Amino acid sequence: MDYKEIAMKKHAEWRGKIEIALRADVDTAEALSVAYTPGVAEPCLAIQQNPELSFMLTRRWNTVAVVTDGTAVLGLGDIGPEAGMPVMEGKCALFKAFGDVDAIPLCVRSTDVDDIVRTVFLLAGSFGGVNLEDIAAPKCFEIERKLKEVCDIPIFHDDQHGTAVVALAGLTNALALVGKDKAKVSVIISGAGAAGTAIAALMMKAGFVDITLLNRDGAITADVNYSRPHLNELAAWTNPNRKSGSLADVIKGADIFLGVSGPGLLTGDMVQTMAKDAIIFAMANPVPEILPDEALVAGARVVATGRSDYPNQINNVLAFPGIFRGALDVRASDITQTMQLAAAEALADIAAADGVTETNIIPAPFDKRVAERVAAAVAQAARTEGIARVQDERI
Amino acid sequence: MDYKEIAMKKHAEWRGKIEIALRADVDTAEALSVAYTPGVAEPCLAIQQNPELSFMLTRRWNTVAVVTDGTAVLGLGDIGPEAGMPVMEGKCALFKAFGDVDAIPLCVRSTDVDDIVRTVFLLAGSFGGVNLEDIAAPKCFEIERKLKEVCDIPIFHDDQHGTAVVALAGLTNALALVGKDKAKVSVIISGAGAAGTAIAALMMKAGFVDITLLNRDGAITADVNYSRPHLNELAAWTNPNRKSGSLADVIKGADIFLGVSGPGLLTGDMVQTMAKDAIIFAMANPVPEILPDEALVAGARVVATGRSDYPNQINNVLAFPGIFRGALDVRASDITQTMQLAAAEALADIAAADGVTETNIIPAPFDKRVAERVAAAVAQAARTEGIARVQDERI
Repeated sequence: MDYKEIAMKKHAEWRGKIEIALRADVDTAEALSVAYTPGVAEPCLAIQQNPELSFMLTRRWNTVAVVTDGTAVLGLGDIGPEAGMPVMEGKCALFKAFGDVDAIPLCVRSTDVDDIVRTVFLLAGSFGGVNLEDIAAPKCFEIERKLKEVCDIPIFHDDQHGTAVVALAGLTNALALVGKDKAKVSVIISGAGAAGTAIAALMMKAGFVDITLLNRDGAITADVNYSRPHLNELAAWTNPNRKSGSLADVIKGADIFLGVSGPGLLTGDMVQTMAKDAIIFAMANPVPEILPDEALVAGARVVATGRSDYPNQINNVLAFPGIFRGALDVRASDITQTMQLAAAEALADIAAADGVTETNIIPAPFDKRVAERVAAAVAQAARTEGIARVQDERI
Repeated sequence: MDYKEIAMKKHAEWRGKIEIALRADVDTAEALSVAYTPGVAEPCLAIQQNPELSFMLTRRWNTVAVVTDGTAVLGLGDIGPEAGMPVMEGKCALFKAFGDVDAIPLCVRSTDVDDIVRTVFLLAGSFGGVNLEDIAAPKCFEIERKLKEVCDIPIFHDDQHGTAVVALAGLTNALALVGKDKAKVSVIISGAGAAGTAIAALMMKAGFVDITLLNRDGAITADVNYSRPHLNELAAWTNPNRKSGSLADVIKGADIFLGVSGPGLLTGDMVQTMAKDAIIFAMANPVPEILPDEALVAGARVVATGRSDYPNQINNVLAFPGIFRGALDVRASDITQTMQLAAAEALADIAAADGVTETNIIPAPFDKRVAERVAAAVAQAARTEGIARVQDERI
């Protein structure tokens, strides 16, 4: 049986990868009068007086909504809300298993920005945070921006920022290995959607300077006036040397290739034109922009992919459970770029503590140290930023 | 420590009465590739082809949204979405403990009918049913009606229909005990909100004829033109004898008093004017319209309340877990009045099997037989009505 058959068989057996569990007894009349009527009136009245107590007296402090419109699920495109649910349930299972976060999957039957924003806003009082998932670019940018304006709980689009955090962590160690300076390297990002844009933004925040993004039409540059506003915005703060042309054109002399695009887009010939000690993160799933063996043969020094069957797996599970754990632990009102940088640094440090090598720039997904350390770093960054509302929910 | 202190202390300890539990392993790379990427693409694609498969391959088949706008929480009035959460979590705990239903609490930050309808509609693809909770009348009627029009999953306002089912079950046995005919008895309902209206409607469906509702202004009658449309509608199908006046006026000669109003509204003097073998359901919580001892002294034959410290507790937990269990089991598209009648009959039969007495007209809340028997009756009614989409989810 191949993995597709196994996946179908197991999903049909599970009929749901998460379920509800009880934390309170309701099995006697006495228990019921405490957990439900009439006793429950007391916490209700206390929260009415001070809504912040909802974080103390209900599960809100540990609960995250995982919200999608089903428009960019895996590489499958717009498959609708019901069909997105297996991924959202899987995400929620990862939240619990890796971060002890209670995550609730909500698939919205609309692709309208205002519908999604309104729905999440109206439900925000039930949650301690919101993880946006698999929402197509460029709508995802507007949805996230609008939600951050109207909500006082963290709004985090994992396809953007989770990917950016893990990629930056790996890059940090890869650059240390090859002895190059982030302020001086030339970076090419293939893919200018949600992930590519967020990676570029976080890298700029981290101190990278020369970053050029490409979409299927080639390098995005301020020399072109695009019909899509998102591309003009991107061009305004990237590609300082106004590179133009195809991937084969702009890859010449580049130090770093980051792929969040499609299978096989990077060839060995292209890799051969890159600078010495080239770093290649071919993160397209399940088939990367170039296979590691081919990249290494062509002269690359460090190669990472999204796959578990090669070293250096860039896997979002390294980031989002710990990031939300940390944000929830201090009841942060946002997950800022500074908190994301702290998460990337914590991730990089874990691999560095074991000794950075060409095949160890990032911890493995099941490394037990990851979530706790990322959470601690994110919580500390929130405190420093002054957006932590409590010292630590868990002590 | 009184029960208020205990409730606050326990809620602060629990910090949530429900949480998420895992049904699928995600603790190894192999497990992850089945429950999450890349394997999860298979169930996603299958559901995209046929959205009905969301009931087979995700938790949808067993998942209910518990939705409130916080406007009628307990007797506390409009306390807002965060403050409603302790009750919603309690409800979800009861759903799991009594019906093995996975219920998700969603508190909506709006009291606008269209906002609530739109929010629930947009999320309906994530759920197998929706339990509306603690939404004030008359908005609750419009919200439920509109949602039933646009959703193909059951929409059920428990404050209305759950209460009606349990009250009807108790009334059925009480009438058998006193040997009166439902088509001939005179019924007075104190309270014309969500519960009173639904009780009257279900009783009419069951064959009662002479039902008069009162609000604080007195009997609702077609002789008056009300400013609130809901009251004119009520007057059109109740109070066939056009009774008018206060409770003291209309209670004279009545066979049955049902109270879903406020504490102490029914006096012993009023009970003395009722017909022989009077039946009194004083269901206001926590203080009933009349205390059982006082009603019995005044000549009532059967008395029920909402309280656990007296016999004959009219408690919604007898109905909603089994009703949803049954509806989910056959993937019913609605919870109809016929299904509600079946639930009431099943409840009445359980108490009848033990022998109906003045203090045993309804099963106790923790009677282990209840949820399964109600579920079976509801599922069978759905099959008979032709709105069951599968024979039985659980076999």
